Amino acid sequence: MDKQTALERLRALDRERMHLVRSAALLQWDQETGLPPEGVEDRAEQLAVLEGLAHEKLVNPELGQLLEVLEARGFVEDPPAGTASFPGEDFLRVLRRDYERAVKLPVDFVRECARTEGLSQAVWVKARRQRDFSLFAPHLEKMVRHAQEKTRFWGWGAPGSGTTLYDGLLDLYEPDLSAGDMAAVFGPLGERLSALLQKITAAPEKLQGLPGFLHGHYNPQKQDAFCRELLQGLGFDFNRGRLDCSAHPFTSTLGFNDVRITTRYAAEDPMAGLLSVVHEAGHAFYEMALDPLLRSSCLGEGTSMGIHESQSRLWENVIGRSRSFWRGWFPRFREFFPEETRGRGVEDLYRELNRVRPSLIRVEADEVSYSLHIILRFELEQGLIGGALTVNELPAAWNAAMKKYLGLSPADDADGVLQDIHWSMGAFGYFPSYALGNLYGLQLWEKLGEDLPGMAESLERRDYGGIHRWLGEKIYRRGRRVEPARLIEEATGKPLSSSAFLGYIEKKYSELYEL
Amino acid sequence: MDKQTALERLRALDRERMHLVRSAALLQWDQETGLPPEGVEDRAEQLAVLEGLAHEKLVNPELGQLLEVLEARGFVEDPPAGTASFPGEDFLRVLRRDYERAVKLPVDFVRECARTEGLSQAVWVKARRQRDFSLFAPHLEKMVRHAQEKTRFWGWGAPGSGTTLYDGLLDLYEPDLSAGDMAAVFGPLGERLSALLQKITAAPEKLQGLPGFLHGHYNPQKQDAFCRELLQGLGFDFNRGRLDCSAHPFTSTLGFNDVRITTRYAAEDPMAGLLSVVHEAGHAFYEMALDPLLRSSCLGEGTSMGIHESQSRLWENVIGRSRSFWRGWFPRFREFFPEETRGRGVEDLYRELNRVRPSLIRVEADEVSYSLHIILRFELEQGLIGGALTVNELPAAWNAAMKKYLGLSPADDADGVLQDIHWSMGAFGYFPSYALGNLYGLQLWEKLGEDLPGMAESLERRDYGGIHRWLGEKIYRRGRRVEPARLIEEATGKPLSSSAFLGYIEKKYSELYEL
Repeated sequence: MDKQTALERLRALDRERMHLVRSAALLQWDQETGLPPEGVEDRAEQLAVLEGLAHEKLVNPELGQLLEVLEARGFVEDPPAGTASFPGEDFLRVLRRDYERAVKLPVDFVRECARTEGLSQAVWVKARRQRDFSLFAPHLEKMVRHAQEKTRFWGWGAPGSGTTLYDGLLDLYEPDLSAGDMAAVFGPLGERLSALLQKITAAPEKLQGLPGFLHGHYNPQKQDAFCRELLQGLGFDFNRGRLDCSAHPFTSTLGFNDVRITTRYAAEDPMAGLLSVVHEAGHAFYEMALDPLLRSSCLGEGTSMGIHESQSRLWENVIGRSRSFWRGWFPRFREFFPEETRGRGVEDLYRELNRVRPSLIRVEADEVSYSLHIILRFELEQGLIGGALTVNELPAAWNAAMKKYLGLSPADDADGVLQDIHWSMGAFGYFPSYALGNLYGLQLWEKLGEDLPGMAESLERRDYGGIHRWLGEKIYRRGRRVEPARLIEEATGKPLSSSAFLGYIEKKYSELYEL
Repeated sequence: MDKQTALERLRALDRERMHLVRSAALLQWDQETGLPPEGVEDRAEQLAVLEGLAHEKLVNPELGQLLEVLEARGFVEDPPAGTASFPGEDFLRVLRRDYERAVKLPVDFVRECARTEGLSQAVWVKARRQRDFSLFAPHLEKMVRHAQEKTRFWGWGAPGSGTTLYDGLLDLYEPDLSAGDMAAVFGPLGERLSALLQKITAAPEKLQGLPGFLHGHYNPQKQDAFCRELLQGLGFDFNRGRLDCSAHPFTSTLGFNDVRITTRYAAEDPMAGLLSVVHEAGHAFYEMALDPLLRSSCLGEGTSMGIHESQSRLWENVIGRSRSFWRGWFPRFREFFPEETRGRGVEDLYRELNRVRPSLIRVEADEVSYSLHIILRFELEQGLIGGALTVNELPAAWNAAMKKYLGLSPADDADGVLQDIHWSMGAFGYFPSYALGNLYGLQLWEKLGEDLPGMAESLERRDYGGIHRWLGEKIYRRGRRVEPARLIEEATGKPLSSSAFLGYIEKKYSELYEL
């Protein structure tokens, strides 16, 4: 088989698998947005069939052989810069990574994991409702053990390898970034944020001067109408995507020209739904601006969870909670809600939107304390997976870290160690993506601001063209062709660092709180 | 392998295939109801992958072997009446039928058919827009040839077999009913309906006395709200289904507890959207009331297109266009549309809804002329597939038959032979289902009326419980376990016949037109 034929065949196998993955994503999207309540049971079985077939297509021996043939003969090379042929070398590298991850796990182990995950999640829901960690503990132990076995199967943490078991879990979401790399950044970050948070909470409550106005009754239909106009204004193409409602906001890619986001509207909190729209729009912009060459291939996705979160958090927080953004949109917001906003201005909204109030709950956290919630989880995960921390010791360790970083003590475990779904699904190593997203986002924003002066004025004019072009060129278009560390370095000239983020946070909140 | 193990394995293979079929149905449903415009291309590829896999699962040699083993050893028997175990014998018979249909067609032929179908449909759209049959003719010739080859592959029409090629196509939609059987019923039916239609069109225009009120501006949101209330009132369970909008109304089964219908609303024609809802509800009631034993198996569907249409057309026409039905619903309709219905009553609505106006277009036809449109197509299809009629002769034959049955002459082929999509998709043999549906529906309604006296009063009270129970027992619950001819005979005590339908039509319209 000649080079071209082998590559074409491999691409066809990959394409078929991606179509199955996207089809499964539609089944899931529908489940969250419109499935009749009693349809859940069949849907779970349908999803299991599609996911099973997608897995079969990935561990297909023919795919493995084609990979070997093409790699061994050095048959595939990237096209010279500036040409538009398919990036074969990146394709082989990324597909090899996906293939290894799938093929190294014994089928029985995968099945056992899926089975216990389902049960673990169900028990977590119950334990959280009953505010009783002890119910969940034995399941969490199993999930930890499975995570350890999984990363061991992948080849991490062997004595003398210089890697840890936890590195392998991080690598799943943030390729090529070790726990050590992250700790080197997260350590100082945690200290600086903690210090700032203490100063803010000690400062006189300047932002409480006026009673807020972003509550009361904001008609959800009108919120939706405003959000659609906003989304379009931000650059979301409704010919290539949708906005729907679901219990938890998410973004789902169902095709190269089919990227869907969701939100939820609460009458008493109009900013929650709106900022979810802006957050998910950040994810969607990434998926909507991929190089068409990568369409329907394993390269046609965001390169990591951290880079993905950099986009969602950049749009939500850095843009969506800025003065300039609201100078652009507040007049229109006021037209939708004249009564609700009577007598208030951009500055009122800006202050209310950026109030810092340390909370026990991650998803309610402000920009200052959010990363602290993540650092706490990162440290605990390292302990759990590395073996230094047992599941029984976890609640106390959680509470101690919460006290240390945020100065708070949960009344019980429901608002503490039981608050997130992630561990019940075995998704250890996922949390750091959120904090990495904050750091990457500000690194990109800093460089973007240097390359495109006058960004504040652009935002006031609601002109996002420059942002889309810059991020599109440096990040979006490249898909999975470039791993996150190199991507950030090529885009900004610097490796991962917290300085841009800290500079932004300290400047913004010192001004707000007159520190 | 023992009997039970073989049956369980066969059921697992069938179940997996059905889950793929349902997943593909979701992709299609989404395409019609919410797919972003530019998502069409990827969706087509995703659908091709899922349909290809579903086909692979059906022609799987293991499935064929298990069928043989179980059939040969007489291993599977139906459970004794009254017990609730899985009906293995019906399962084998129906799965064998599906398997043979799939396995007898060479893979290359199936692929060639799919390819030419896509092109044929596209050209049909263009030819219809340009009102030019000659564009479409060569493609139609190919579709006819493919249909002939297909039915020949299935073993129909061999010399001395006593069957025709067309029989094989009819069998696909209406198992065990030959063209001869149908002709014996359709012939006299056509004559009686034609005669009635002539009398009606010659009668003084009694129904035109008042200008109609079912046009003007009926707010589509209010139409939707009314239709949802109506649908629920008819017995549609929104916990197990949905109502959405699409360009063409349809029903889709996505799971045992997930049956979805669609409609479309036009401000100037409130009855179109409403009657579509009632029509599709008839399909949905059938799919929603299957025996749970048949869930996720090839038996868990309606038994034929004709029986399915009997339900949709029964609910839409016999119930939804009746006086009793509107005595139940008009007061509520008037509350939704007080201005639009001012000064009008049930009788006005009844007359307007049942006005007979022969039309060139099948989908706009009234109850009297509808079956004539079908009989015309049935005769032409017989000619085309049997070889007595060439594609070039078709437009003239169409126009002659239109003149004969409906007394009308189309101005051009767009409103004549080009009006329906079916032939462009190669769906020869499908049309008769619609007329069979009319006949079956009235046979069932007649018997139901004997078993449940006082039906008119029940309808006035909006009480549909008796109808659901009777149809559920006799038809819905049985799924594909019983072929249509036996099903109708068991339910009504009589074989297929047009007398109930003709009795209903002649009585209703003689009264309306005072013949």
